[in-house]
Parts: sequence; structure tokens; C-alpha cells
Amino acid sequence: MKFEVTILGSSSATPIFNRNPTAQILNINEKLYLVDCAEGTQQQMLRFDIKASRIDYIFISHLHGDHYLGLVGLLSSMHLNGRKKTLKVFCPPPLKEIVDLQLKYSETTLNYPVEFIFTDATSRGVILENQDIFVETIPLNHRIPCTGFLFRQKKRLRKLIKEKIAELEIPIPYYPAIKKGNDYEAPDGTIYKNSVLTIEPQEPKSYAYVSDTLYNENYLPQINAVTLLYHEATFLNDMLDRANQTHHTTALQAGEVAVKVNAGKLVIGHFSARYKTLNELLDEAQSVFPNTELAVEGKTFIISE
Amino acid sequence: MKFEVTILGSSSATPIFNRNPTAQILNINEKLYLVDCAEGTQQQMLRFDIKASRIDYIFISHLHGDHYLGLVGLLSSMHLNGRKKTLKVFCPPPLKEIVDLQLKYSETTLNYPVEFIFTDATSRGVILENQDIFVETIPLNHRIPCTGFLFRQKKRLRKLIKEKIAELEIPIPYYPAIKKGNDYEAPDGTIYKNSVLTIEPQEPKSYAYVSDTLYNENYLPQINAVTLLYHEATFLNDMLDRANQTHHTTALQAGEVAVKVNAGKLVIGHFSARYKTLNELLDEAQSVFPNTELAVEGKTFIISE
Repeated sequence: MKFEVTILGSSSATPIFNRNPTAQILNINEKLYLVDCAEGTQQQMLRFDIKASRIDYIFISHLHGDHYLGLVGLLSSMHLNGRKKTLKVFCPPPLKEIVDLQLKYSETTLNYPVEFIFTDATSRGVILENQDIFVETIPLNHRIPCTGFLFRQKKRLRKLIKEKIAELEIPIPYYPAIKKGNDYEAPDGTIYKNSVLTIEPQEPKSYAYVSDTLYNENYLPQINAVTLLYHEATFLNDMLDRANQTHHTTALQAGEVAVKVNAGKLVIGHFSARYKTLNELLDEAQSVFPNTELAVEGKTFIISE
Repeated sequence: MKFEVTILGSSSATPIFNRNPTAQILNINEKLYLVDCAEGTQQQMLRFDIKASRIDYIFISHLHGDHYLGLVGLLSSMHLNGRKKTLKVFCPPPLKEIVDLQLKYSETTLNYPVEFIFTDATSRGVILENQDIFVETIPLNHRIPCTGFLFRQKKRLRKLIKEKIAELEIPIPYYPAIKKGNDYEAPDGTIYKNSVLTIEPQEPKSYAYVSDTLYNENYLPQINAVTLLYHEATFLNDMLDRANQTHHTTALQAGEVAVKVNAGKLVIGHFSARYKTLNELLDEAQSVFPNTELAVEGKTFIISE
């Protein structure tokens, strides 16, 4: 099952050096999930040929402008482009008030339903479950209420051993039960154990989106052994005081988080406008966690194929 | 005195085909005036190397998102970049409520004063006068309250004839009075008529920004003989019904406006997403008003040198 994330924005606070503020697109089994939606996200989607009509879920981590100011424009464009199907927006409660006010004064009634599902930044919780994934909020510690999001694939069904199934001429209607782990009784009464008919499915993969946060230990258990960890890394560690003051993380700390939770891979982003180039941030994170990459606009990271 | 306009966005409603929704920068005597501020205006200013710190005035025509959704992000970036001086925002009254709500939930107190000056879409009025210009609202007829803006240079002082001033050895303290039209009395009692000391200044130039509107005759007298007319031209004239229905103008109508008001030059913009290329829109406007150009992102039109 496809499970990958494409970076639409990697900048903190302001757009600069061709970096746009935060937004990411997850493709999970050919459904698109938008995570944060800074100003210019629409334009980035056009640039990278991502169809907004394919997005059914939007997740907003917090109400600093560099994480949500592109939302109303995107909702409006979906409306103008004829969207009819429901859009679910997971967000801090005041976002609905902001969106409603803007639609009110533009005298716009969207042609499609928007369902707001409010996040609670004080506790971990499953906010979405569908056939492919669970999504949990990750309570973070920022200057205003802020959550990250953990996307976990569902445990998949066992995989049929095609040759064995063919050899035994097992009829198709039996497949679902066998995939769930049942044995198979042939017409002659022979029992075939599930273990000879199937193999273990791939372990569920996961993606943690750790948006703006002061480094702390609270969220580490929740993201333990995550396949791909995106973590903000606004500053180099020589700016640790500034990071603490503004409730952000340094690249070194992001690397340390990846080590502590035993992440498969780390992607760092949300870079301060003071860094024209990003090599030092990458080097610093890699000094503790070598399998680190930079969030770069347009780049796709594969979580599961 | 420099008086020119640079197009930052020419698209209607949605960004598409590398066209951004509406925003323009006026440079009037090296001061910058931003006219409308769609999503992505900040990014466009970076792209065209326009310093936001030099903007002291922002004008918002109406509260459709494609004309103002970049404002809060821009205000926020000015704050983060250390702005201290006052910013004046001329806009429909509800915009203050929208901005205040967003700043409230991001817990942001701007480091600089923003003064909101509310426009009245029902009547023509001077909303700004400074040493260089007058700005008037142009009442338009759109689906929601909407004004255009007319920028008129002030009548300038008469120009000294340098050779004559030097010949008569007129002291510098006399210059201001002579520029205003006074005669000069030499120490020997000789009176020199102003007409031998000065020449007529350049006629004041003007720029009319005619944002979204249903074509009508009401605003024509106000923009008569305008030097440069920007007029929306959302559709080709074969979509006249759609233009009327959505309270927009066709390229043919924009050309007709330019003819009727005897404009010096016409620039058309606010192109519908249905037009991938713009030649037909240009041809249509030029069929009635040949001195027409397309609003193209990054292009600067000189109103006065």
C-alpha cells in the first residue's frame, strides 16, 4: 500500500529563499491527506501537480499563520472547481470561527460539506480511523495549543501464498477468511493449516508529524519506533536559548528525538529564515542520527511501498 | 516623479497557469503602495525583489479571498521582520474584524501600529492625501461591496528655468515662492514676471485601479482622461451573460471603457482560469482600444517618469 509524504513547505514563519511555510501531502493508498496549509499551499500543489480534488482530509496543527493561512483560499478554490464531496478538517476549535467569518463576508456558501473535527492539544487521541489508517493527535508544547499527528497503517491481512492456493484450487469466496488467519477444509475433508496457505503481512508503517514544539520527553513514547519521523528543527543548537524561548526545537534535539524513539528515518524542517542554506542543520542532526534528510519542497519520502 | 505599477497577480479567483490572484505594487516617488493582497503576494514580492518594509499603505478593494487572503501573512511577516512604523490599511470595515480574530488566536500583538481606514463602497471619496498624491475610492458594482482606487498626482510646482535663475543670480530662498508662481523683484527694483523665470510643470498623471465590477457607466466620469487604466477583464465577450451574472467585465467592455474615458493606456487583468493563454483577451480589448496591454506577473507599467 502506497504511503508517502511530499513536502510542500519547509520554512518557518515567513516564506524565504524559495522556501514556503509548512504544508505536506500524504498519499496513503492513493488518498491524499493535507497536513498543515500555509499561505501558498495551493500554488505549491499546482507546482508539483497535486490535485486538490483528491484531498479528503486536512489536518491543522495550530493557529500560527505559517501553518494555516492557505486554508480559506484552498476551500474556496475547491468550491469554484466544483467539489461536491465532504471535506474533513481536523483542527483547533477556533479555526471554524475564522473560516466562517471569512466565508460570511465574502458571501460564499461552499458547494460541498466541510466537517470540522476539533483537536484537543492536551491529550493524545485517535481522531480518525478509516480502512487504511489510524490518525492520533500528538500533544506538543508550543506557545499556543498545538498538536502533531501520528499516522499509523492498520494491521494488514495475511498474504496468500499464490502457488499453494492455486495448487489446492481453493475457491475465491474462501480467500477473506484465510487472509484473516483461518484454516481451510478441502472438499475431501483435509484441513490445511493457515500457516501453509499464507505468510505474515508487512508490519504496519507509521509517520509522525511533529510540528512546532519545545523539546520535551512527553511525546516520545507515543512515537516510539515510528517508520518516518518528521520533526521541526527551526534552529541550530547554538540558538538553543532562542529555541527554548520561542518553544521550538534545534536540529541537534531533533536528531536526539530520532535516536531516543528509534525512528527508521528522520526528516527535519521548519527552518528559520536566518538560514539561507541548510547544510549545517542537516550536519547537526546527522551527527547524532545519520539517517536524516532535509524537508525540501517537492521532495517525496516513501514510508511504505 | 516616479509613478509606476508592477503586477504581482493577474488571475481571478484561483491561482493557475503561473498566474497569481490579484495584487499590484505602486511606486510613487519611491514610496510603495500595495493594491489588493491575494494569497501568495508575499511570495510574489520576494520573487520580484520588492521590499515589504517599504510599503506604508495597503488598499483592499473588497473581501473576496482572491483580493485579500495574503494580508494577514504579510502583516505577520512585517512584524517578524522588525517593522516599527505605522501601516495604513484602506479596506471594507469587516477586514479589521477578520485580521483581529486571526491575530487573537495566534496570540500575536504586532510590534507596529496598523491603522485601518474604512472605505465606503457607496460613494466616491478622497481617502488619502499626502505630499505626492490623492487617492479616491471608485464605487463599483460587484456581488459584495467593492471599490476601485484612483491615484492622482498632485499638481506640481512650476519648474525653474535654470539658466535664467543663474543669470539673474536669484538667491535660493526665493525659489519656493517663484515655483508657486510669484514674480521676482531684483535688488535694483526690476520686476521679473514669473513667466520668464519658470515653465509649466508636467500635468499630473493618474492611475485608476478598477477592480471587480459589472460594466456600468457610473464610474466613468470619475476616471475620465486617466493616464493609465487598469480594468478587470475576466471573460471574453462571448461569455457576456456569465460576466453579467457574476458581476464582472469582458475584455471588449474594458476596451470600451478605455475609449469612453479617453484613457492614455489600458492594462487588463483578473483573467478567468478558463483561459490558459491570454491572446484572445488582448485582441478583443485592442479591437476597440489598441493601446492595451496584459497584466503579466512581474511587468511594470510606467505612469510618469
